[in-house]
Amino acid sequence: MSQPKHVTALDLKPVALEPDMAKYFAKCQEKLGMIPNVLAAYAFDNKKLRNFVNFYNELMLDDSGLTKLEREMIAVAVSSSNHCFYCLTAHGAAVRQISGDPKLGELMVMNYRVAELSPRQRAMLDFAVKMTEKPAEMGEADRAGLRQAGFSDRDIWDIAATAAFFNMTNRIAAAVDMMPNPEYHAQAR
Amino acid sequence: MSQPKHVTALDLKPVALEPDMAKYFAKCQEKLGMIPNVLAAYAFDNKKLRNFVNFYNELMLDDSGLTKLEREMIAVAVSSSNHCFYCLTAHGAAVRQISGDPKLGELMVMNYRVAELSPRQRAMLDFAVKMTEKPAEMGEADRAGLRQAGFSDRDIWDIAATAAFFNMTNRIAAAVDMMPNPEYHAQAR
Amino acid sequence: MSQPKHVTALDLKPVALEPDMAKYFAKCQEKLGMIPNVLAAYAFDNKKLRNFVNFYNELMLDDSGLTKLEREMIAVAVSSSNHCFYCLTAHGAAVRQISGDPKLGELMVMNYRVAELSPRQRAMLDFAVKMTEKPAEMGEADRAGLRQAGFSDRDIWDIAATAAFFNMTNRIAAAVDMMPNPEYHAQAR
Amino acid sequence: MSQPKHVTALDLKPVALEPDMAKYFAKCQEKLGMIPNVLAAYAFDNKKLRNFVNFYNELMLDDSGLTKLEREMIAVAVSSSNHCFYCLTAHGAAVRQISGDPKLGELMVMNYRVAELSPRQRAMLDFAVKMTEKPAEMGEADRAGLRQAGFSDRDIWDIAATAAFFNMTNRIAAAVDMMPNPEYHAQAR
Amino acid sequence: MSQPKHVTALDLKPVALEPDMAKYFAKCQEKLGMIPNVLAAYAFDNKKLRNFVNFYNELMLDDSGLTKLEREMIAVAVSSSNHCFYCLTAHGAAVRQISGDPKLGELMVMNYRVAELSPRQRAMLDFAVKMTEKPAEMGEADRAGLRQAGFSDRDIWDIAATAAFFNMTNRIAAAVDMMPNPEYHAQAR
Amino acid sequence: MSQPKHVTALDLKPVALEPDMAKYFAKCQEKLGMIPNVLAAYAFDNKKLRNFVNFYNELMLDDSGLTKLEREMIAVAVSSSNHCFYCLTAHGAAVRQISGDPKLGELMVMNYRVAELSPRQRAMLDFAVKMTEKPAEMGEADRAGLRQAGFSDRDIWDIAATAAFFNMTNRIAAAVDMMPNPEYHAQAR
Repeated sequence: MSQPKHVTALDLKPVALEPDMAKYFAKCQEKLGMIPNVLAAYAFDNKKLRNFVNFYNELMLDDSGLTKLEREMIAVAVSSSNHCFYCLTAHGAAVRQISGDPKLGELMVMNYRVAELSPRQRAMLDFAVKMTEKPAEMGEADRAGLRQAGFSDRDIWDIAATAAFFNMTNRIAAAVDMMPNPEYHAQAR
Repeated sequence: MSQPKHVTALDLKPVALEPDMAKYFAKCQEKLGMIPNVLAAYAFDNKKLRNFVNFYNELMLDDSGLTKLEREMIAVAVSSSNHCFYCLTAHGAAVRQISGDPKLGELMVMNYRVAELSPRQRAMLDFAVKMTEKPAEMGEADRAGLRQAGFSDRDIWDIAATAAFFNMTNRIAAAVDMMPNPEYHAQAR
Repeated sequence: MSQPKHVTALDLKPVALEPDMAKYFAKCQEKLGMIPNVLAAYAFDNKKLRNFVNFYNELMLDDSGLTKLEREMIAVAVSSSNHCFYCLTAHGAAVRQISGDPKLGELMVMNYRVAELSPRQRAMLDFAVKMTEKPAEMGEADRAGLRQAGFSDRDIWDIAATAAFFNMTNRIAAAVDMMPNPEYHAQAR
Repeated sequence: MSQPKHVTALDLKPVALEPDMAKYFAKCQEKLGMIPNVLAAYAFDNKKLRNFVNFYNELMLDDSGLTKLEREMIAVAVSSSNHCFYCLTAHGAAVRQISGDPKLGELMVMNYRVAELSPRQRAMLDFAVKMTEKPAEMGEADRAGLRQAGFSDRDIWDIAATAAFFNMTNRIAAAVDMMPNPEYHAQAR
Repeated sequence: MSQPKHVTALDLKPVALEPDMAKYFAKCQEKLGMIPNVLAAYAFDNKKLRNFVNFYNELMLDDSGLTKLEREMIAVAVSSSNHCFYCLTAHGAAVRQISGDPKLGELMVMNYRVAELSPRQRAMLDFAVKMTEKPAEMGEADRAGLRQAGFSDRDIWDIAATAAFFNMTNRIAAAVDMMPNPEYHAQAR
Repeated sequence: MSQPKHVTALDLKPVALEPDMAKYFAKCQEKLGMIPNVLAAYAFDNKKLRNFVNFYNELMLDDSGLTKLEREMIAVAVSSSNHCFYCLTAHGAAVRQISGDPKLGELMVMNYRVAELSPRQRAMLDFAVKMTEKPAEMGEADRAGLRQAGFSDRDIWDIAATAAFFNMTNRIAAAVDMMPNPEYHAQAR
């Protein structure tokens, strides 16, 4: 597999990691066999890195009415709309891995609308992608659609927060040309 | 001034604030005379609230090659592209206040392209708005444009991170119908 | 308040006003305390100025099934879609002044979809903005929606004519970089 | 040739024409062999009709640095972008008639970019169509392009005013389903 | 009528036609009085030419649940969305000729949505144009709409295949600047 | 790997294959170990199937100034713009297989603009994607760009024809919900 050209296109020197972040990187290396490049990209500043890690982990890993797979599906459907190479690669791998269904990962990357989804998951992704493409047009009817599909108001927050977060990271990745670790490509195929 | 219909359209009960967050709310009340509704919106969960506050404050208030005014200008120009009522109201007020130039706030809200800006600030906003509207088309030429306008690679990160952040908050605000505090409208006119 | 850079970016010398136009300018100065820059912009040619004034005044001030406030709301919602600094400034001030509700002006400038509007006014603005953004897709269903919201066929004409007019003026303002009088910014806040 | 379904989709009764307008209609009938439907559409109100006629005739027929053909070319290129059946039909006929080149009329209706035009006329139409499609992005570079192509500032006003006017009439026609006189289709083929 | 500048902008020398293709060109000359330029454009390679002719003739002329006029209407409505001068000219003439209704041809060229069509034909064109403009959003509801309008599954294939084909030819014509034979402009007016 | 829901959403019965097509299917089975679903989709009609096979094979496999890999790269970059699940899956696999570089396939699927490409290949894909997204805006400058990148006029035809072809097949696939063979997903990872 060819190596990525760089972690990002910016010349930002990594700093010495503070103890909590050093421990976190060690845990990544142990569990994933690599440091995800998004973390390497933030490693020029401990405080920025820590804030990102905390924000991300709470959103994607803490308790929620959405399963971890559903949050990863949102990540990938949003990233498909924005054509984000980093997030499609890293989170496409996550969808394949968590679901055990490689095709599902590809469907999220390519066009979630042609996947066979439950009405709940289709409504969730339609909301996430409308937020992404036409935020100014969101309205009460969109929230009502999620409630009819069985989501609580807390779930709606989590859908919104997840879709919004990847609209942020997609754009950082695009702006600085962040490249994913090559290991993702072959995972869970 | 008419009161906003709600803080958000979601029925999420506030929890008891943990001490650090209670202290932060008290500080807001003292310095701003109000609790910004975005904080009230997150107050259903201390951890989410804390992560948001930390992320936001580091980004907008910590040291950077960008002035606080420049970061607020990015916030408003991005929010104009996304037509976000919450962020245009709150950060439009910030631009007016920090700059002492009410018209500058209006220009950022309405169309930054017709403002008389330095080449540096014009390049900064062009980058931020291109990231917002066409993230998939960002490339090395865009970064080169910022470097030519005098920005360091660290500054480019900060422009990218700021523009990306408001692409997140604009979408949360749109998805949950977050309403700004009415006090903003009359500030610094 | 900083002065605008110019009335327009074009070098067009004002001519001597003919008596009816001189009288009209005097009336503006007396009632508004200023000559709106759009009139100054047309003052290089008495005939063009007169035609514009007649067209504008009939549309916005003569009897109609639409209130003056409603016509101003259309002006601002259309101008928001087109990001017209001149019209958002001048007619945003008009919405604030006529309604006595500064927030309503800001909502029209930023995103009319998040305003709490009567079904009648929401239908009116949805029609005006669809005409603006997707004129080729207008059809009988759109007119039927206005009739169901209580509008007569004459009212539909007036909605269409008002929305269409600001699609004209927004574009003249953009093409010649027309700058609004600075007085508007502080009015009716 | 099949008759159009109606003049407009609105049920607005024509009023008795006042003498100046009656005379104008008679002149149209004499010179064109018909009353253009846009005039019939406005004939429910003498004042609106008169303002429209004055505005239109000054813009399209009075002295200008633009030839009458150039103004008609702008009308059609703008109307092509907006897919306006009324204006493409009526002004497409005008381009064919004035130029004596039926293909030129078709090129303006279908895609002005593939026509063989002088640099002057290409610059003029690029400006007019950019104003139509991306008004918020107009800037000094666009006006500089027209000046380099040989246009005076007064000519720039006339290009802007003409392109803007058809952005108005295209939208009125779309909103009320205005149908052109069938006679246009066979003219100057 | 002015001659087109060229058949295409590419410098590709015609080869000696092989017998079947020479016979086909002779038949075109006899029946149409000309060789359509699209055939001349492909005449640099007998195999490419033959494949195109076979593909085109089967699609547009063989038995189908769609009439030949309906297939031409699809061709023109799709080409209007893509602003293809070649296809609008050649197939607009075909709609006028087959229907005997010059206005119908113009409606397809300019905006099929304002034509008075049967619900069947309106559904057919809405499907064809949605495929053209938003292919990623096609779904079962779109096919269900065609079935409700009376189309069989085989008809749906034919609508899809015809609309898709002109999305191909529109783009070849645009990419190589293919110019239509001038004879089309005056036909069946 | 989960099976696709269907070959297409249309109920079209396969017919008995005529000898040449039966032989072609046997060859596919032997060489690829499967019948690509696009062929199964056309197998309701021998003539349509044959025309498609001839057209496709000449375009993608015959001699050309473009390598087979380059033609597949065009196929995938175009299909990414159109979000076509079928073509991204089948031709993404082809890019991985021919190049021996799995990451290259993913880059074409996700965003070709972030790939490290030679100026030749970047120019080729920029042309193909502009044709896809803005066909009406293609002009001589686009062709000049390809010539400067070293392409002959015959190569330009092949780029145009390939990009146009996938704009056709993407839309057929979208319109009939064509599903790719599941075997593709794991190939050449």
